Amino acid sequence: MKFAKRTELIKSSDTRELLSIIGFDEMISFAGGLPAKEGFPVEELKGIAADVFDRYGYRALQYGPTEGIKELRKMIAEINTKKHGTLINENQVLITSGGQQALDILGKIFIDEGDSILMEEPTYFSAINAFKAYYPHIVGVETDLEGAVVGNLKASIVDYPEAKLAYYIPDYQNPTGKSWELTRKEAVLRVHQKSGVPIIEDCPYSDLQFEGEKVPSFLALGNMKSVIHLGSFSKVFCPGFRLGYIIAEEAVIKKCVLMKQSMDLHTSNFSQVMLLEYIKTHGLEANIKKIITIYKKKRDIMIQAIKDYLPGSVTYHKPKGGMFLWLDLGKGHDSRKFYKKALEEKVAFVAGDAFYLHERVSSGLRLNYTNTSDEDIIVGIKRLGSIMATY
Amino acid sequence: MKFAKRTELIKSSDTRELLSIIGFDEMISFAGGLPAKEGFPVEELKGIAADVFDRYGYRALQYGPTEGIKELRKMIAEINTKKHGTLINENQVLITSGGQQALDILGKIFIDEGDSILMEEPTYFSAINAFKAYYPHIVGVETDLEGAVVGNLKASIVDYPEAKLAYYIPDYQNPTGKSWELTRKEAVLRVHQKSGVPIIEDCPYSDLQFEGEKVPSFLALGNMKSVIHLGSFSKVFCPGFRLGYIIAEEAVIKKCVLMKQSMDLHTSNFSQVMLLEYIKTHGLEANIKKIITIYKKKRDIMIQAIKDYLPGSVTYHKPKGGMFLWLDLGKGHDSRKFYKKALEEKVAFVAGDAFYLHERVSSGLRLNYTNTSDEDIIVGIKRLGSIMATY
Repeated sequence: MKFAKRTELIKSSDTRELLSIIGFDEMISFAGGLPAKEGFPVEELKGIAADVFDRYGYRALQYGPTEGIKELRKMIAEINTKKHGTLINENQVLITSGGQQALDILGKIFIDEGDSILMEEPTYFSAINAFKAYYPHIVGVETDLEGAVVGNLKASIVDYPEAKLAYYIPDYQNPTGKSWELTRKEAVLRVHQKSGVPIIEDCPYSDLQFEGEKVPSFLALGNMKSVIHLGSFSKVFCPGFRLGYIIAEEAVIKKCVLMKQSMDLHTSNFSQVMLLEYIKTHGLEANIKKIITIYKKKRDIMIQAIKDYLPGSVTYHKPKGGMFLWLDLGKGHDSRKFYKKALEEKVAFVAGDAFYLHERVSSGLRLNYTNTSDEDIIVGIKRLGSIMATY
Repeated sequence: MKFAKRTELIKSSDTRELLSIIGFDEMISFAGGLPAKEGFPVEELKGIAADVFDRYGYRALQYGPTEGIKELRKMIAEINTKKHGTLINENQVLITSGGQQALDILGKIFIDEGDSILMEEPTYFSAINAFKAYYPHIVGVETDLEGAVVGNLKASIVDYPEAKLAYYIPDYQNPTGKSWELTRKEAVLRVHQKSGVPIIEDCPYSDLQFEGEKVPSFLALGNMKSVIHLGSFSKVFCPGFRLGYIIAEEAVIKKCVLMKQSMDLHTSNFSQVMLLEYIKTHGLEANIKKIITIYKKKRDIMIQAIKDYLPGSVTYHKPKGGMFLWLDLGKGHDSRKFYKKALEEKVAFVAGDAFYLHERVSSGLRLNYTNTSDEDIIVGIKRLGSIMATY
């Protein structure tokens, strides 16, 4: 059998492969992007499931429309209308099989071989793979602590005026935990509005805000003419149901629906109905509050442990929300080497090079703090500290 | 926004669009490929859901491995080992988000722009779309009542020796309801083994056998060197959970896993656990038997109604299983015109041209008999009869 070129282009994810390791005895993993299990409303969902079988019966188990269940699309439109302060209707919402599928669908409707796209760098590993499958020319956009560097972005758009899209994670970014400042967002949006290159803003973590001012989304600052907004229920509800969504103007949603039809027909009806009934009976807010309390505490524990057990040469970015903390080992270091040593010592993370568009050495690494017990966060950082002295 | 070419290549499905119409008052639809709701074990699943929340707890709601849950892969391997009489292990099984996703994944790992692929004609509408998204050159393979026409297949393989794959639905085909004969399968398999062009056999209906001898699968007659086998739980369990699988040699499964990771990370854990526990506690056999009884009766009612109410100029193929019956209006007829008239008269089906690779007129049409009440089957065919006299 002879395979397509893309099977050689796409890299396997350390994190996913690690999912099979995580269970191993004594391994402490900061590698995955898994939510804390304490945030899953197991008992509530048990009651809702019984209710779903009683009230929906076979309808929860039958095929459904590709766009998603109308009532859920309406609800997502309402929630996002409030969130972004801009009127969204259900025809501007597509339910996807997790946030990941939204990336695959958008890659598929926009990218032909050789088309240019822009991506902030470093960025979400599986977004790079999702887009790469369609053979784009990927142009990296430099970022600093406040967001994309406007001069660099402008230069890229001058070089690639036909770029099909730009991909940003503006809130509590994966992998850096950074959030974009308002003035930077406004400046970046202006560049895009002028050039006509649409922004895809991926916001799976945006609701997990620990502190600080809420910065409006690109969708709130602009409109659907230039912004496609992505949301996910994996971080604020349960990833096991695989539920996310795309908000875009109706013409774009129609293209997405056409494509999704050939990809998986539609997202699980049962998952959709469970979410719909959960929101109706409980709302999302209380659970988000609970998750924020858990994550903020874990972030603080990790930062204290970093201060206590890692050398002063190591720098880090303190995230104001989300699930990830970016650690920099300092100039001349290669976190890939450190990673191998760390695995031997039973502590895992993701080496920073995984998040770059092209092969390079990175002194950075991504630590997840949401799926490790408070005690193990301390033990794990301690282990990193003792390896750092010797690796 | 500028879109990829594929958004123009892919056609919207009459059937899917009809899903929004089906609910309309008095419309009788033979258009969808929906299973009968009587086949969904609602009460049993209600009990299983409660049990799943108690026993799996948060684990059913967390992220999972891209390949699928190990225990379910093992179980699918065992079931298929028995079915095909050839040893299959769990590393040769990938769980997909419905049978449709299996087609998307395979198109993605095999097809680069311009690569040739072979497809029997007519064939499953959404398989054409799934593959078209990767820009193949699609070569139609002629079929008769016994399967692919060997001479035509051989000629195609001589013309396109580098063809990446061939796609067949050998049992109770969608849309024709036809099943391949054993000797034909053997001859076709030999052509493929000699040429090295792999067969993808799509078997969502294979278990829904009403009568006749069971013809072994391509996988049973050959092996994974030349055959990739696809299965689905949408027709023998519940489509709303979106569960299907690919059986292939491990090297192929590895490519599929890599690709699926960038498509939806993994299939719903909750769906997988529900299926796993259902099979463990109830098995699939009893439900399949029940479904067969319902469908066979509906097929017989439809055939009797065709004999009673349609003119003798109309011919049809009597399916020995599955969900579809193919009706031919006769030479010179265009079922697309008939379709428009039928919709006005509140009866729906899929016009045959939808199932062909290239634009053409078809005198055939597809009738689904599984999702219409026994009474409505008769009323619907009667309506078709009276339109036929006048359209």
